[in-house]
Amino acid sequence: MIKGDLLYEGKAKRLYATENEDVLYVAYKDSATAFNGEKKAEIGGKGILNNKITTILFEQLKKYGIESHFIEQISENEQLVKKVEIIPLEVVVRNIAAGSLSKRLGMAEGTPLKKPIVEFYFKDDDLGDPLLTNAHLELLEIASPVEIDTLQTMALEVNQVLRPIFSDIGVTLVDFKLEFGKTTDGAILLADEISPDTCRLWDKETNKKLDKDVFRRNLGSLTEVYEIILSRLGGLSK
Amino acid sequence: MIKGDLLYEGKAKRLYATENEDVLYVAYKDSATAFNGEKKAEIGGKGILNNKITTILFEQLKKYGIESHFIEQISENEQLVKKVEIIPLEVVVRNIAAGSLSKRLGMAEGTPLKKPIVEFYFKDDDLGDPLLTNAHLELLEIASPVEIDTLQTMALEVNQVLRPIFSDIGVTLVDFKLEFGKTTDGAILLADEISPDTCRLWDKETNKKLDKDVFRRNLGSLTEVYEIILSRLGGLSK
Repeated sequence: MIKGDLLYEGKAKRLYATENEDVLYVAYKDSATAFNGEKKAEIGGKGILNNKITTILFEQLKKYGIESHFIEQISENEQLVKKVEIIPLEVVVRNIAAGSLSKRLGMAEGTPLKKPIVEFYFKDDDLGDPLLTNAHLELLEIASPVEIDTLQTMALEVNQVLRPIFSDIGVTLVDFKLEFGKTTDGAILLADEISPDTCRLWDKETNKKLDKDVFRRNLGSLTEVYEIILSRLGGLSK
Repeated sequence: MIKGDLLYEGKAKRLYATENEDVLYVAYKDSATAFNGEKKAEIGGKGILNNKITTILFEQLKKYGIESHFIEQISENEQLVKKVEIIPLEVVVRNIAAGSLSKRLGMAEGTPLKKPIVEFYFKDDDLGDPLLTNAHLELLEIASPVEIDTLQTMALEVNQVLRPIFSDIGVTLVDFKLEFGKTTDGAILLADEISPDTCRLWDKETNKKLDKDVFRRNLGSLTEVYEIILSRLGGLSK
């Protein structure tokens, strides 16, 4: 595949065209951002770690029948993906109260939820990625009610696959954010990435944070904890 | 009815016991508050206006088969109501984008919605009355899913009655907030008040605001616009 024109640069990744119009080239960046871009840093090695972790997790999901845009990893910090039109929603699955849910509901961080919940946030930096109810989703016509149900179901299925994968390596999957896209024929595919940038991951024994909260809350070296995740997932040699 | 002990003092009303344990005495205050109590003022006459407007609207709703806690007006600023346990939700119905919906969705104030929407906010000053999704409502166990459906249906019914009442007096019902309570036998009743404190009301001809936004946004005399509403509702002589 030939890396063509830069099509889009996000906070954490660059997307390039290829000679196949249905395939994109994704390059993971070393940039870390938090609080809607207010906090920023360049962290050497982060792009490689997230590319490798995302690769492992998308491959695992595929084994369990959950298709994503992921095609293959092609270099330390690059992968090929199917071209999709991203649905402008952040689909958040939560197993344990933390972050904005704790603040919103006045629930102590670490409180297990009776059952996993799914939240939808409008992917719009200018608006600060606001929480949306079903009524808002219908109003905005971002996705049809049937598509919203599909996103909710797929998000919970991803959770059912990822929870035991992380549990088996001594990590609690607290919550995570997914993005989805539509292919030209209208199919909905899991897209974006799944990494410690987009998940809250706590060590099961120590409750130590092994995710981007280390950066958000200045808790130490980000790459050290991302390396722990990659290593436990068996991906250090790849 | 004898006005007994003060049971509860809210931002806009005081509740007193009566000799009948199922009946409360409500005294409307002249206090105006906004932005979760950050902005405050005493506005002489406001309590009387809201008591009279609420009385008219609850009486109208009753004619259309919507029961509320309201029993009768007993003085200029007082009414008797059935005792209910307030469900800690602010149930907001919106016909036109304004206020927090405009901010949340980036929709210009005044944009008509394709159909009315209902939102639920957690009535909790410490948390800043946060927006709740259905998943949050289920998690918090504030009301059962069946009760949430009932609240949603009742709120839309109230809207269907109030919209033409306001339209007939040249006023657009932009949005409003309702509260509901449960009687000792578990029935859900409309409660609290319905007044320019809890509704957005715009003059149909001029779009002039005839509600608490006059106070929130320093647009002039609050009592003057509340008197316009009371007068058009035919309540000035009462």
